[in-house]
Amino acid sequence: MGTVMTQRLVVIGADAAGMTAASQARRRSRQLDVVAFEKTGFASYAACGEPYYISGEVDPIDKLIARTPEQFAKAGIDLRLRHEVTAIDLDRRVVEVRNHNDDTTSETGFDSLLIATGARAFVPPMPGVELEGVHTLRTLGDAEVLRSVAEAGAGSIVIVGAGYIGIEVAEAFDARGWTVTLIEALPSIMARTLDADLSVAVVDAIETRNVRVLTDVMVERIEGDGRVTGVLAGGESIEADVVVLAVGGRPVSELAGEAGIALGATGAIVVDDHQLTSAEGVWSAGDCAEVRHRITGEMVNLHLGTVANKTGRIAGINMTGGDASFPGVLATAITRFHDLEVSITGIRPTDAEAAGIDAVTATVSGLTAAHYMPEASDMTIRLTVQRGTGTVLGAQIVGGPGAGKRIDVFASAIWQGMTATDLEWVDFAYAPPFAPVWDLMAIAARKAASAARK
Amino acid sequence: MGTVMTQRLVVIGADAAGMTAASQARRRSRQLDVVAFEKTGFASYAACGEPYYISGEVDPIDKLIARTPEQFAKAGIDLRLRHEVTAIDLDRRVVEVRNHNDDTTSETGFDSLLIATGARAFVPPMPGVELEGVHTLRTLGDAEVLRSVAEAGAGSIVIVGAGYIGIEVAEAFDARGWTVTLIEALPSIMARTLDADLSVAVVDAIETRNVRVLTDVMVERIEGDGRVTGVLAGGESIEADVVVLAVGGRPVSELAGEAGIALGATGAIVVDDHQLTSAEGVWSAGDCAEVRHRITGEMVNLHLGTVANKTGRIAGINMTGGDASFPGVLATAITRFHDLEVSITGIRPTDAEAAGIDAVTATVSGLTAAHYMPEASDMTIRLTVQRGTGTVLGAQIVGGPGAGKRIDVFASAIWQGMTATDLEWVDFAYAPPFAPVWDLMAIAARKAASAARK
Repeated sequence: MGTVMTQRLVVIGADAAGMTAASQARRRSRQLDVVAFEKTGFASYAACGEPYYISGEVDPIDKLIARTPEQFAKAGIDLRLRHEVTAIDLDRRVVEVRNHNDDTTSETGFDSLLIATGARAFVPPMPGVELEGVHTLRTLGDAEVLRSVAEAGAGSIVIVGAGYIGIEVAEAFDARGWTVTLIEALPSIMARTLDADLSVAVVDAIETRNVRVLTDVMVERIEGDGRVTGVLAGGESIEADVVVLAVGGRPVSELAGEAGIALGATGAIVVDDHQLTSAEGVWSAGDCAEVRHRITGEMVNLHLGTVANKTGRIAGINMTGGDASFPGVLATAITRFHDLEVSITGIRPTDAEAAGIDAVTATVSGLTAAHYMPEASDMTIRLTVQRGTGTVLGAQIVGGPGAGKRIDVFASAIWQGMTATDLEWVDFAYAPPFAPVWDLMAIAARKAASAARK
Repeated sequence: MGTVMTQRLVVIGADAAGMTAASQARRRSRQLDVVAFEKTGFASYAACGEPYYISGEVDPIDKLIARTPEQFAKAGIDLRLRHEVTAIDLDRRVVEVRNHNDDTTSETGFDSLLIATGARAFVPPMPGVELEGVHTLRTLGDAEVLRSVAEAGAGSIVIVGAGYIGIEVAEAFDARGWTVTLIEALPSIMARTLDADLSVAVVDAIETRNVRVLTDVMVERIEGDGRVTGVLAGGESIEADVVVLAVGGRPVSELAGEAGIALGATGAIVVDDHQLTSAEGVWSAGDCAEVRHRITGEMVNLHLGTVANKTGRIAGINMTGGDASFPGVLATAITRFHDLEVSITGIRPTDAEAAGIDAVTATVSGLTAAHYMPEASDMTIRLTVQRGTGTVLGAQIVGGPGAGKRIDVFASAIWQGMTATDLEWVDFAYAPPFAPVWDLMAIAARKAASAARK
């Protein structure tokens, strides 16, 4: 028994990717000294749950925190909140850390480094974003603020951007009795993940709740004097006590870039399939890193909890001598607006065209349950398959309760290179409360198989 | 243009399999003369929906009838209700038909014949089954009777047999406020489709509703004088105003057997993968025919709406000069008892053992949604995979709303020969109302992959 060389892993950013990696690494290597620096006061929280905290469905906020610093300490992880890494020195193998508790700066050495700095909400360059009452939703701190706003009494809210977060925030404030206006600059809502014609059903569901939806409308400025009073959009002045900017996020990659670590065209950190960056012994995972799309082969930057957890796990294995490859993403996603569910996996026709893939689609509408059951609600499935082979490339679903998670069947099918012809005959589960005797998934597959042969 | 030889297709039994085949055949071949004989007064009805008609969730009963005789006539199908085929003469290519409307008997010639005689409820040989108030549930007529019984005012019902139908009838009468007792002769409920230890959660859910569940208890006799008054089971006399026998069904294959058509060990009609019987030009589909199990390769006899529809479609294609093979079954099934969902696909450990397949299992418990969401409810998944390769062979799920239909992911995985290792990394859809960030399906796959390697 010789002496054990203690190795130190430094983790920058203590959210899903960082702490999954830290936990995985520490579980695999008990001698490892793990220090995690987090610039905010929160670590390891469920950002995706924030809209449901704002709505009041989740309470108290602690429920969104997966593990506390004390729990991490027990697991052998030294988590330091309000510690911001301000520089990485690759030659000296040290990070410079600003301690916001006592405003001191120090250096910490590392043998291996994980950059998991995540993403930040994008604030568009428009007049008035600095006014009081203008918010973004990303951190648990943001959620706390928006919850207290929502609870203070119903007023008017304008949400800029009708992507997943915009729609979830709209649901939350609508549930609180607020007057909600959703403004989208693109011609359709959820445009990055849902074909325009399919988004019509989502707009209908939103408008049924008296939430106003404006598409193809640019916000010219946020109005107010000190405090927000309204939004000028498409020439119209819309009253607003609160504005939420939900126009997407950007990877936080400046620290890595300044250290000389390669960034990709997406602005995120370049990693290989082991989550290794361009620098030896430096890894990255989560929202700040690129991932490979399984169908197009392109490197993309997604801000999804699943991807953060999975890439964190892969990094944790590889940083401790393991050999695991991240198999890529299909960019599967799901959300709801009250009873309407929306989900997607793989690529859409427009994506196929951009990637030079010859694809055809089939779109079918039907029901989530047997037509005679009270549970039955409308559902539309669009399947995208390769012309000729019929290999499944993507699916989009819009429908009532039970519709959305059907997307997982298509995700599995795509993962395994299944054709629509195979999928058509799969022995799906049937009982009247759960599906018609031919599940709409099979009907979509049949129609797509036929389209692929033409 | 020569003369068109009109060919006649005779269909025996006008339910899911028969009428799917007839419709498919007629759609493909406009010259075809299609005659369908149905001995009861109902055709093309949704038997699986009957429990929900009894409970009152479905109303009126017409909703369970997919198409009326008039609609079939428009589609060129001559559907004759209350016409019972009493004999098949393969040499003379005629069927003998008893018309129960006017009590006449005649013969009808055929060029091709589809036997879709379905299944009947099994009535166990026990004293008292002939008493008034003792029922089975199979036909729409049975459903009408049980609905009027259920509506007449709450009393006591004993259901013999705790399989799918028994449990669905229990739910219906429980919803109607009846005192329900469920008696199962086997040591556990749903024993043909769910491992005994997993059925405990189902028993718990049933008992929570004050439905009494007796397992490992034989019914000795049904008591009463003219009308049922109780059931003697395991030495105890249980009061009953109504008894429903739900101990499974038997294929109706006597007519085929008497005509010299081969029957299998299951008692059902032997067919090849084109639904052709042992007799030239004679086809069979639905509950009366055997089907091949995709994993064991064995011929089995299932009474499932999905299988009836699919084999009917295959028969319809092949009877009209097409060439379609039925790809077999995984025996996927799903049901619920109020909020608890139960589903299965593929084989269980006991089935693997019987089939000589070296299998291992992984069982995981978790939640249907993120732990902090009000929607989150318990869910257990058991995955059965091949030792060594980790190829997925079967899955069982028991859990709250949203649990059951996850089985379709496993059905697709099995269909395509996917391994647990592949399944572990599939990009499943995540949002807090729909799943934890690692869907329990992925966790089950990870654990099964690990078990397979041992």
